[in-house]
Amino acid sequence: MSASPLIRQLMEALRCLPGVGNKTAQRMAYHLLERDRGGGRHLARALQEAMEHVGHCSDCRTLCENSRCALCASESRDSVLLCIVETPADVDALEQATGFRGRYFVLMGHLSPLDGIGPDELGLDKLNERFSGGELVEVILATNPTLEGEATAQYISDLARRHGIRVTRIAHGVPMGGELEYIDSSTLSHAFSGRREINT
Amino acid sequence: MSASPLIRQLMEALRCLPGVGNKTAQRMAYHLLERDRGGGRHLARALQEAMEHVGHCSDCRTLCENSRCALCASESRDSVLLCIVETPADVDALEQATGFRGRYFVLMGHLSPLDGIGPDELGLDKLNERFSGGELVEVILATNPTLEGEATAQYISDLARRHGIRVTRIAHGVPMGGELEYIDSSTLSHAFSGRREINT
Repeated sequence: MSASPLIRQLMEALRCLPGVGNKTAQRMAYHLLERDRGGGRHLARALQEAMEHVGHCSDCRTLCENSRCALCASESRDSVLLCIVETPADVDALEQATGFRGRYFVLMGHLSPLDGIGPDELGLDKLNERFSGGELVEVILATNPTLEGEATAQYISDLARRHGIRVTRIAHGVPMGGELEYIDSSTLSHAFSGRREINT
Repeated sequence: MSASPLIRQLMEALRCLPGVGNKTAQRMAYHLLERDRGGGRHLARALQEAMEHVGHCSDCRTLCENSRCALCASESRDSVLLCIVETPADVDALEQATGFRGRYFVLMGHLSPLDGIGPDELGLDKLNERFSGGELVEVILATNPTLEGEATAQYISDLARRHGIRVTRIAHGVPMGGELEYIDSSTLSHAFSGRREINT
């Protein structure tokens, strides 16, 4: 590599981005230097500000720069419904796809004892306080359908039920537009056993 | 998108990177915020410094933060050989692949009259001065084998020949490991007409 130290440093720093290897980092660095210095400066500032000022919402634990996020601060959301997800990206996805008008709680992960992630790390004590508040009518578990996500859902479901709150889990099955022939057997078995009455 | 303003701003800023769309920008932003704030801060600094301090080498026009780049400043490179390339990335590629010990000249583009890129924008006046310096023995044209790259090579070759300097062009043909059957016809025709005597 014959690039100068500052350029090499930039290439190396770009590799902290997910999915960016040596070659992509090189392409990005030269692109910014040759064609988009304004964009590069803007990105530097945006990164700096986000890394310094973004913390967690005191209510739902999602990432945000204020003490409470826009969804928790909103007056128009329905506080009797609480949807529990693993990450802020899951909130974005649900907000975009569904008409859900309740509140969220973001675990920022899932139970994973081997990695030292227990109920405390996921803020389940705070969640439990919310359960005992008496306001909630339904808790919707929208953790990922992975081993850890299922275990986390199970754990939270037990917590909620102790407070007499109705607990639901988002449906798992054949994705829309999918073809049975190509669906993995675990999903297919889930979809089959989770079949529902057709109401005509 | 339910993300907070600073996070949204970061996602938007990340899109200045080549090959990064909405979804990838979202993934990158959340990755840095959730798992690698140190990396994000380091990237912000590296970007800031590179955007502010990287300029062009006064000799070869490549990107570097000093007035002359390491290759131009090096005493051990052979000043009678000059390799002409389009971009700094081409210098990296040649340095990695070849044992070339001469100097480089980086055009930072190619002739493209429609985009307003003429000889002046490529620093050909400076290159011409170098040609008239009397030191050069061989000029190696390593511009890309595209229409514009070929036209640029032709133009520079005319310049150099006027000063009685030997001009060569890197070989174009079938890539190593390639199969004739799958090579495009223009490359194959080039390879055929450019065939060389086998010296046993």
